[in-house]
Amino acid sequence: MQITPEIEELIDRALAEDLALGDPTTDSLIPEGLAGAAGIISRQDGVVAGGSVLAAVFRRIDPSVRVAVGKPDGSTVRGGDEIARVEGPLASMLKAERTALNFVQRLSGIATTTSTYVKAVEGLPVRIVDTRKTTPGLRTLEKAAVRAGGGSNHRMALADGVLIKDNHIDALRKRGMSLRDIVERARSGSPHTLKIEVEVEGLDGVREALDAGADILMLDNMPLEDMARAVQMAKGRAITEASGGISLDTVRAVGSTGVDLISVGALTHSSSALDIGLDLL
Amino acid sequence: MQITPEIEELIDRALAEDLALGDPTTDSLIPEGLAGAAGIISRQDGVVAGGSVLAAVFRRIDPSVRVAVGKPDGSTVRGGDEIARVEGPLASMLKAERTALNFVQRLSGIATTTSTYVKAVEGLPVRIVDTRKTTPGLRTLEKAAVRAGGGSNHRMALADGVLIKDNHIDALRKRGMSLRDIVERARSGSPHTLKIEVEVEGLDGVREALDAGADILMLDNMPLEDMARAVQMAKGRAITEASGGISLDTVRAVGSTGVDLISVGALTHSSSALDIGLDLL
Amino acid sequence: MQITPEIEELIDRALAEDLALGDPTTDSLIPEGLAGAAGIISRQDGVVAGGSVLAAVFRRIDPSVRVAVGKPDGSTVRGGDEIARVEGPLASMLKAERTALNFVQRLSGIATTTSTYVKAVEGLPVRIVDTRKTTPGLRTLEKAAVRAGGGSNHRMALADGVLIKDNHIDALRKRGMSLRDIVERARSGSPHTLKIEVEVEGLDGVREALDAGADILMLDNMPLEDMARAVQMAKGRAITEASGGISLDTVRAVGSTGVDLISVGALTHSSSALDIGLDLL
Amino acid sequence: MQITPEIEELIDRALAEDLALGDPTTDSLIPEGLAGAAGIISRQDGVVAGGSVLAAVFRRIDPSVRVAVGKPDGSTVRGGDEIARVEGPLASMLKAERTALNFVQRLSGIATTTSTYVKAVEGLPVRIVDTRKTTPGLRTLEKAAVRAGGGSNHRMALADGVLIKDNHIDALRKRGMSLRDIVERARSGSPHTLKIEVEVEGLDGVREALDAGADILMLDNMPLEDMARAVQMAKGRAITEASGGISLDTVRAVGSTGVDLISVGALTHSSSALDIGLDLL
Amino acid sequence: MQITPEIEELIDRALAEDLALGDPTTDSLIPEGLAGAAGIISRQDGVVAGGSVLAAVFRRIDPSVRVAVGKPDGSTVRGGDEIARVEGPLASMLKAERTALNFVQRLSGIATTTSTYVKAVEGLPVRIVDTRKTTPGLRTLEKAAVRAGGGSNHRMALADGVLIKDNHIDALRKRGMSLRDIVERARSGSPHTLKIEVEVEGLDGVREALDAGADILMLDNMPLEDMARAVQMAKGRAITEASGGISLDTVRAVGSTGVDLISVGALTHSSSALDIGLDLL
Amino acid sequence: MQITPEIEELIDRALAEDLALGDPTTDSLIPEGLAGAAGIISRQDGVVAGGSVLAAVFRRIDPSVRVAVGKPDGSTVRGGDEIARVEGPLASMLKAERTALNFVQRLSGIATTTSTYVKAVEGLPVRIVDTRKTTPGLRTLEKAAVRAGGGSNHRMALADGVLIKDNHIDALRKRGMSLRDIVERARSGSPHTLKIEVEVEGLDGVREALDAGADILMLDNMPLEDMARAVQMAKGRAITEASGGISLDTVRAVGSTGVDLISVGALTHSSSALDIGLDLL
Repeated sequence: MQITPEIEELIDRALAEDLALGDPTTDSLIPEGLAGAAGIISRQDGVVAGGSVLAAVFRRIDPSVRVAVGKPDGSTVRGGDEIARVEGPLASMLKAERTALNFVQRLSGIATTTSTYVKAVEGLPVRIVDTRKTTPGLRTLEKAAVRAGGGSNHRMALADGVLIKDNHIDALRKRGMSLRDIVERARSGSPHTLKIEVEVEGLDGVREALDAGADILMLDNMPLEDMARAVQMAKGRAITEASGGISLDTVRAVGSTGVDLISVGALTHSSSALDIGLDLL
Repeated sequence: MQITPEIEELIDRALAEDLALGDPTTDSLIPEGLAGAAGIISRQDGVVAGGSVLAAVFRRIDPSVRVAVGKPDGSTVRGGDEIARVEGPLASMLKAERTALNFVQRLSGIATTTSTYVKAVEGLPVRIVDTRKTTPGLRTLEKAAVRAGGGSNHRMALADGVLIKDNHIDALRKRGMSLRDIVERARSGSPHTLKIEVEVEGLDGVREALDAGADILMLDNMPLEDMARAVQMAKGRAITEASGGISLDTVRAVGSTGVDLISVGALTHSSSALDIGLDLL
Repeated sequence: MQITPEIEELIDRALAEDLALGDPTTDSLIPEGLAGAAGIISRQDGVVAGGSVLAAVFRRIDPSVRVAVGKPDGSTVRGGDEIARVEGPLASMLKAERTALNFVQRLSGIATTTSTYVKAVEGLPVRIVDTRKTTPGLRTLEKAAVRAGGGSNHRMALADGVLIKDNHIDALRKRGMSLRDIVERARSGSPHTLKIEVEVEGLDGVREALDAGADILMLDNMPLEDMARAVQMAKGRAITEASGGISLDTVRAVGSTGVDLISVGALTHSSSALDIGLDLL
Repeated sequence: MQITPEIEELIDRALAEDLALGDPTTDSLIPEGLAGAAGIISRQDGVVAGGSVLAAVFRRIDPSVRVAVGKPDGSTVRGGDEIARVEGPLASMLKAERTALNFVQRLSGIATTTSTYVKAVEGLPVRIVDTRKTTPGLRTLEKAAVRAGGGSNHRMALADGVLIKDNHIDALRKRGMSLRDIVERARSGSPHTLKIEVEVEGLDGVREALDAGADILMLDNMPLEDMARAVQMAKGRAITEASGGISLDTVRAVGSTGVDLISVGALTHSSSALDIGLDLL
Repeated sequence: MQITPEIEELIDRALAEDLALGDPTTDSLIPEGLAGAAGIISRQDGVVAGGSVLAAVFRRIDPSVRVAVGKPDGSTVRGGDEIARVEGPLASMLKAERTALNFVQRLSGIATTTSTYVKAVEGLPVRIVDTRKTTPGLRTLEKAAVRAGGGSNHRMALADGVLIKDNHIDALRKRGMSLRDIVERARSGSPHTLKIEVEVEGLDGVREALDAGADILMLDNMPLEDMARAVQMAKGRAITEASGGISLDTVRAVGSTGVDLISVGALTHSSSALDIGLDLL
Repeated sequence: MQITPEIEELIDRALAEDLALGDPTTDSLIPEGLAGAAGIISRQDGVVAGGSVLAAVFRRIDPSVRVAVGKPDGSTVRGGDEIARVEGPLASMLKAERTALNFVQRLSGIATTTSTYVKAVEGLPVRIVDTRKTTPGLRTLEKAAVRAGGGSNHRMALADGVLIKDNHIDALRKRGMSLRDIVERARSGSPHTLKIEVEVEGLDGVREALDAGADILMLDNMPLEDMARAVQMAKGRAITEASGGISLDTVRAVGSTGVDLISVGALTHSSSALDIGLDLL
């Protein structure tokens, strides 16, 4: 993951949360000159993401800490594997430890969850994509973790796609607009580089959206047989995305309908952290 | 939850992630003057937290949006219950929707998880406490969500407690210091308002820490019978905290040993979001 | 224009540039209680943009200053027309004057320039669009000013469109990739909501890009007859955008080729300010 | 130009505008390890400014990009001349390109315009100075670009000079103060290191301001013969500055009246960008 | 004092220092609904400054706290006098108390010290001025406190005056420049609105600086008789400023030499806080 | 002192106060290439603190400036001693001079004052501690300066200790709570790592607080004989802290009562700066 200025700022804020008032334990106990080395160890099987962020946290506290990331984003690890090796002043390492681990635990958790979904649809021509249901302040990192786990990204923000949802459509139908009107107004009012995605319910909705010129259909909570039918109807005319409450149990069946994409909010909003710790050598 | 300057900043950053480049869907479709009303609805049973943050997000986008939070922090909800009512310009509501929900979903998820742990030890004189394993940038909010769920807070940061862990002890023993030396050095080098907590393993460790003058013992991954014995030894001399891999399955047994506190990292690092949506009225 | 948190920050920085060390002229001369009223007057014919920003600047200095914007974004004005009326403490008005005018002069300059391009292609089915050649820090406002002048927006940032330029293509061809490979790799590696635009030179390039599946062709510095031919070739297969050194003198001829869009960097990088002043009443 | 902390912040914001959500084109297409080299080429004759800012932009994206600026601020270039050479990871170069060029184009445009004014008064003992009509957020850079073009700076902000304008004078005369009172109050109420400049209209105004003890006279929109007379009257008593709607056509005539300074708002508010591009080698 | 955006930011940072991790005392003890009222009481005689900052601190914590400042900047108070009255939620008042008092104590301390210097030269035509030896981050406020105490301001920053000090002169003499060359280079290289001040030692230095055209002479650590002589020499040609180690004991004698200004670093770098407390009513 | 991200930000703001608009004196006079060397010299006897901050200020302006700090925090110096040696571009050194000195002067002033208090109680088993009466924005640095002077720190912020003051107690007694209730509520509502300190007046108050279970007693403005008695009563049950208007004249007598801690607000709110200057070599 790239450490952009925004990520640097996020790291500063995370460190401030933990360290702004100092670390009396380490400050009173650990002599300044004492050096140490530690391994960042996964205590579970999983897929790693965020090693570069972990490294940046340690270096922000103390540029003389050296971090070698052995497991780049997307690496599969087993419990006990070393993800990174950290060396330098022990006091600095102990101060940065918790913040660094908090990043890599969460991001690896997302990558690991994503990879289980991706594996579940192995062999099918379908992409697992994320949503905008990300942790406030962490979107860029969490979307990178999804990619590390083998998934793809849906919109990064509201601006990189037009997605006309039920709430938009209902409000405008009440004012006498047809779906065709709505799609055309969206197209003429937004950058020409964006496709128009329309949320549909039922096969009538599919038909209407195709006729209205939608580039992408979001099939929301649709029964599997309808979904398969919708895919047929859309073939060559629009991309299809399945959405809404899809779990590990159902994802393969959904993928088998032929949809192009399956979006899963849980990748980012409900992943468990991967258990990762720092062991002094 | 109080909307401090730091939380205002966090809200601004979260909104920027989603909206900095605009919302071409809403901007092209929804007329400026169009008003609307919506309910923020829980789609699951749980405990709510973060209503004031949700309200602050909507008002940040548009001060003319009115938000009435019907379910204050700590309220129990059932699927279908309305958490808050939102009224005002429809365009503003749709732009703020995702960011507002991302906050309240996550915080309510933490409150809900916490409440299940608290219920599991009902009747026992033990507190469920959180850890510093929080999401980078969200610590204050997540710790407030733990309180909303009936839990208590461990240290907010490194500065509001001295916690001497294995890594500190090992490094100093190698340099010839006894645990008593270590505890004394920590006490004289930190504000007198802080207690000294020491991580211990095994009953010998308990004895040594008590003799060294520790105010709090962190019993890390200790077998239940040892833990019960440690509690007896510490009675009247130190507070006891159980820690390390405690799950919903084991928490009541741990509480039954008589420990004063049980710390659970999963409250903040592995809670699923509570499913919450915005429904136009 | 919407005063988002980012625009508020920009206003703060602009005010700091002028006022961080105070205003000794006004501070030493104008009594605190003295009230006044002033008109914000255009001294030239043009199209106005940025009234809401002007109002926000005055109010940031002093919330008791009242600003009534009589000419909303996109209004045509003649020299002498009042754009806004400002009332309140005179000292506050004089301190904010220069910063407020600097915003509205520049944005109105862009709107005015844009409107001349839009008028030059009146009646032709073509849109005038801007580029990313905007002033550092002002992109959102400048793109809103283009809309106020009747233009449309191209990409807001790198993220809301895939635009494969010569530099990308050349680097990858050297590594043995065909344009088709390139377009496919871009499509699979970016959000599915984005169209793929390809920069082309010459009619061979047009053919190749169409075959590669480009959604949009950027016809860069192409002779008019070739451009007209390219439009024919692309009809029904891709959108066409004319680009490169198009001026007021040539824009109608370019539009007459049938292209869908004409992008003009000068809208934002070389507009003169509209002359606007503050006259005390 | 010096890259102060404020300029670093401005660069970060400019990069965020373009890159905060990523660059899907480059990210999906250009392999991480691929290196490249490019020239930053002027496509027009002009005077260059901002090379150090351009370099800082590239290095902010990626410290491993090397930038050698061949044409320091104030250098005259011809179309085709290389301003700087950039080498390093191709992906980083392509991501930073637009932002880097946006800075150097605008600043070089200002330097070029300034130099044409300076040349127009060559041989006359008069300085061309800028105004506070600068782009919000860019004042320090734009004023440095004026110096690069051979001009001088008027006030950097409201604090580094006392400039008593019509609006100040009118408001205070209504309250019974004479110009002498006004000048004295300003002098006693501001740091003693500042001169007092007074805006005057007509020769009576010149006389009154001189008698009131003004250090500098701003001759606003004065006919040339009056201006020449005012210069005679002020000789040895006050500095004279011509101001108000002075263009390239009139600047030499104005300078010939003997004024010490000519201030030109258009230097910063209406310069066209110098056309500069990045060519891969 | 004006609460500019920069002062708002400073208040936010000051509050964050004390409150970012919460206030467990007040949070655990004081019920949310409990209201209260308190007086901000001076416990010493002195001159007050900073009431508006105190008010802004309370309101930042909680906009429902009402603050009425009874003693505006520059008011003389006796021990026991009420400076301001505060009413509202008790918890909010207790959280803001320390930060609010820290501002008003320091600023009133500076105003009080300044007023003793001003009184010591009463009747003499001399101004007491401050220096740039201010507390990092508080310059604007501290300089306003000096004005509240009856003093005047020297330069606010490096930019609002040219002050050629020994270090500048020595470095340039070594390169063969005369003082006249130095003064001329400074004049032509800085905005024409700035006067040129030169630090001088001894009467030869005074003569040289006057001949070189200095607008202001800084008489540094000069014996009183020399200072009186320097004032005579400078009469009608330059302003004179006494500087260097001037204390309350010596300030009147220095003022009696006829100098125009006496600068005193101790106003800002060594004032004791005025003892001010919050008493619940 | 550690240069954390927060200290870096503080340095940036301090530099911006002085330099945001440039330094016309140095910019117009000192050639870019000119190098120099200087000593940072104490002009008084005292204890030094803040050398690392001084070094960071110079390096922030210009990374090519080299600073060697010869007197680390806590060093005793005599007038004339060199604290640090600075070498590099002369212009950069002169621009950073004032800001760098402002930091080290104030921090060394605090360290020096602290050391006089510490010396005054030499041989007694008592610690001199600071308070939260620090300069807004500088708390972390000022508390480090207290440690450099041989003192200890009281709470860093509201969060790292529970301190129940008169205002808390009075408000709650009115609502029918006993001190025991109050202490218990505080203990159960705050992290278990914090001790409970209670402000007491008179010996009855001491008794009540001990019975209520207070961990620390703050003996506020208590007569010496009562204080000695309070110490006897508290022995083995609570720590004792003397507080309130303690000066250098009284500190040893207070210490002789046997209290564990003496808190002195004047360390941070009323220390004079140590006189420190920059001398070119």
